[in-house]
Amino acid sequence: MTRLVIRPATRDDVPAIVAMLADDPLGAAREDVTDVQAYDAAYDRVDGDPAQHLVVADRDGTVVGTLQLSVIPGLSRRGATRSVIEGVRVARGERGTGLGTELVTWAVEESRRLGCSLVQLTSDASRTDARRFYERLGFVASHVGFKLQLGD
Amino acid sequence: MTRLVIRPATRDDVPAIVAMLADDPLGAAREDVTDVQAYDAAYDRVDGDPAQHLVVADRDGTVVGTLQLSVIPGLSRRGATRSVIEGVRVARGERGTGLGTELVTWAVEESRRLGCSLVQLTSDASRTDARRFYERLGFVASHVGFKLQLGD
Repeated sequence: MTRLVIRPATRDDVPAIVAMLADDPLGAAREDVTDVQAYDAAYDRVDGDPAQHLVVADRDGTVVGTLQLSVIPGLSRRGATRSVIEGVRVARGERGTGLGTELVTWAVEESRRLGCSLVQLTSDASRTDARRFYERLGFVASHVGFKLQLGD
Repeated sequence: MTRLVIRPATRDDVPAIVAMLADDPLGAAREDVTDVQAYDAAYDRVDGDPAQHLVVADRDGTVVGTLQLSVIPGLSRRGATRSVIEGVRVARGERGTGLGTELVTWAVEESRRLGCSLVQLTSDASRTDARRFYERLGFVASHVGFKLQLGD
């Protein structure tokens, strides 16, 4: 029997997280797994910000999934605090097992526990399965997501 | 001659910000300007989080615009720190003057200064002018934005 836990990511988990970020049609072009220093520095920034919750799904000691939850206070919607989910990834061998659902469900419950009244995320329009996946979990695809790349 | 400055919001600006949030086709249904306590408490949460930059556009001492910029460190995209723009509002009498452009341009420059390599935002799909507005500023409408409202 296997045991799955969703737990805070440690610095030792960074290579496994980065490998999952890169093993993805979009991530492959965006990540550089050899740039260990950049990812370690980024981990330290995340770890130093109490509003960031970077977690991994750990099955019997192996990292098989990840996501990051960010908590953002704000004035709109009667002073609602919202959470943002980013970087949801499931290891190749674990896809189709319901682990993605488990991760996002965890994030929603954690958001509630942290006092958020709204959870939001964006998904690249080319990820055609994502819409069905998030709608099944109760999310509404009400918004258009814009991005602007800076410098480089 | 009028003088416009974009400056950090103070607690005294909260009523003017809330009035702008409510004076909007979507905001009208979501805000309750009489709930002063909720908005003041929200302001204190925003003010207490160094990753939040709530600003107002101030024209000769009158608040005529607002937005909130949030800085989110992360591992993806080679450890990119991203910023998120929320709650962009321009006072009714100032619409069509280019103030929205000025606010968002400020947010992009501030994001750069804060070390972000990506700026993102979502806009309700019913805001039909928003797409053209953000695309003119260089944003790409590449994503679908999902939201999940939590309890009450």
